[in-house]
Amino acid sequence: MSTEPEIPRGGCTLTPIGRIHSCFTEKFGIPRQPGLVSEARATLEILPPFDRREMFKGLDRFSHIWVHFIFHEILAEGWKHTIRPPWLGGRTRVGVFASRSPHRPNFLGQSVVRLLALRFENGKILLDLGGIDLLDQTPVVDIKPYLPYSDRIAEATSGYAMSMPAPVAVLFSEEVIAFGVSYQREQGRDILRLIGQILQQDPRPASQKEAGRDFGMKLWDVNVRWQARENDFFVLSCRRLMVG
Amino acid sequence: MSTEPEIPRGGCTLTPIGRIHSCFTEKFGIPRQPGLVSEARATLEILPPFDRREMFKGLDRFSHIWVHFIFHEILAEGWKHTIRPPWLGGRTRVGVFASRSPHRPNFLGQSVVRLLALRFENGKILLDLGGIDLLDQTPVVDIKPYLPYSDRIAEATSGYAMSMPAPVAVLFSEEVIAFGVSYQREQGRDILRLIGQILQQDPRPASQKEAGRDFGMKLWDVNVRWQARENDFFVLSCRRLMVG
Repeated sequence: MSTEPEIPRGGCTLTPIGRIHSCFTEKFGIPRQPGLVSEARATLEILPPFDRREMFKGLDRFSHIWVHFIFHEILAEGWKHTIRPPWLGGRTRVGVFASRSPHRPNFLGQSVVRLLALRFENGKILLDLGGIDLLDQTPVVDIKPYLPYSDRIAEATSGYAMSMPAPVAVLFSEEVIAFGVSYQREQGRDILRLIGQILQQDPRPASQKEAGRDFGMKLWDVNVRWQARENDFFVLSCRRLMVG
Repeated sequence: MSTEPEIPRGGCTLTPIGRIHSCFTEKFGIPRQPGLVSEARATLEILPPFDRREMFKGLDRFSHIWVHFIFHEILAEGWKHTIRPPWLGGRTRVGVFASRSPHRPNFLGQSVVRLLALRFENGKILLDLGGIDLLDQTPVVDIKPYLPYSDRIAEATSGYAMSMPAPVAVLFSEEVIAFGVSYQREQGRDILRLIGQILQQDPRPASQKEAGRDFGMKLWDVNVRWQARENDFFVLSCRRLMVG
């Protein structure tokens, strides 16, 4: 166990094969794991020289795929030795390798997502994905089919009690409902349902759980403001951002 | 969808966090997926600066982990647009992104394996892994806990009929049995059971399936010779390799 590894330090480089276009234009509000918010959609645009149809032949026969990506927004922040994962309520500190935190060496992410469609349009290859937890503009470095006989481990256990929060009731102001109806007609995006699913998962950091606080989050080009009340979350307003 | 990705081409580098010490000292004989050969064991040795205990705190509470690695033996061969996966019998050609082939852009591998033990010995951090499909000396770039509630997708489907071969009967010569007993006493490795499990999966390439052919494979420091007969596989000999 004393010789050096085959790959010298820093000697292996990654080339993005594609890029994510997602509803999550900022980190706040992104579900803690894929699959929690079915309405969360993204399109993976394949980049040259990987945009060749034959490289995707047969992929549309799988319901789910693994997306391997780089936590590009974390690169500047760096990695940590320990973190407090949300599924332990944000209180218990564990090693970064005992977590799925983005603050990890090599900044590699792995998400299993639903493959909604594989499209070939105007010379582009586009994959529509559902149940995503991916930030807009995320560089993707690999995709693989989800193989149930190999990836679905029936006997896998975790020694932790995963404390996923119970779904929270979400209420909308009349103004927000009117906005959502009009936005869906114009953009084909069911933003009210998306907001509802995201807030049900309680996206607040563990340190900001007191009632009465206001929050903002960006979904696509919309700024959403909502309030954490005693027994529910109330969505106050939706405003289109000016696109420069 | 026209701006360039955040990470420029070739701009992201990977640093190995560890290295695999496995029974598979060559590619032939490696199971096609993890979990198929429970007796296939490896030790992951964590490399500096990642060999800090606190980075692994809590990991031992998970039964399974994801190992992300580089297909280092494939780097020189390069990637391919299409391949013929073994679970389609080696006949049907699919896109590399519709497969788990190592001949893929970025050469990233992903295996879910059993975490048998997390050991701190002589200043080293060592993870004992079971059910592996990893070549000896594989550079590991990340590990993550397997989260059943997120990674076990009950409704995932594949449109393909996965043609995993039916288990093959494996017979051993008396010489091989004597070798196996002595090797296990000396090394603590149940090599007969390992050979049996590997051959039951039929490691032959699709192009070499005719009966009567002899094969060799290396496990640890042992050269194993076996013959594919009409109705079974017969293990002819085991020889220790001279270690230079």
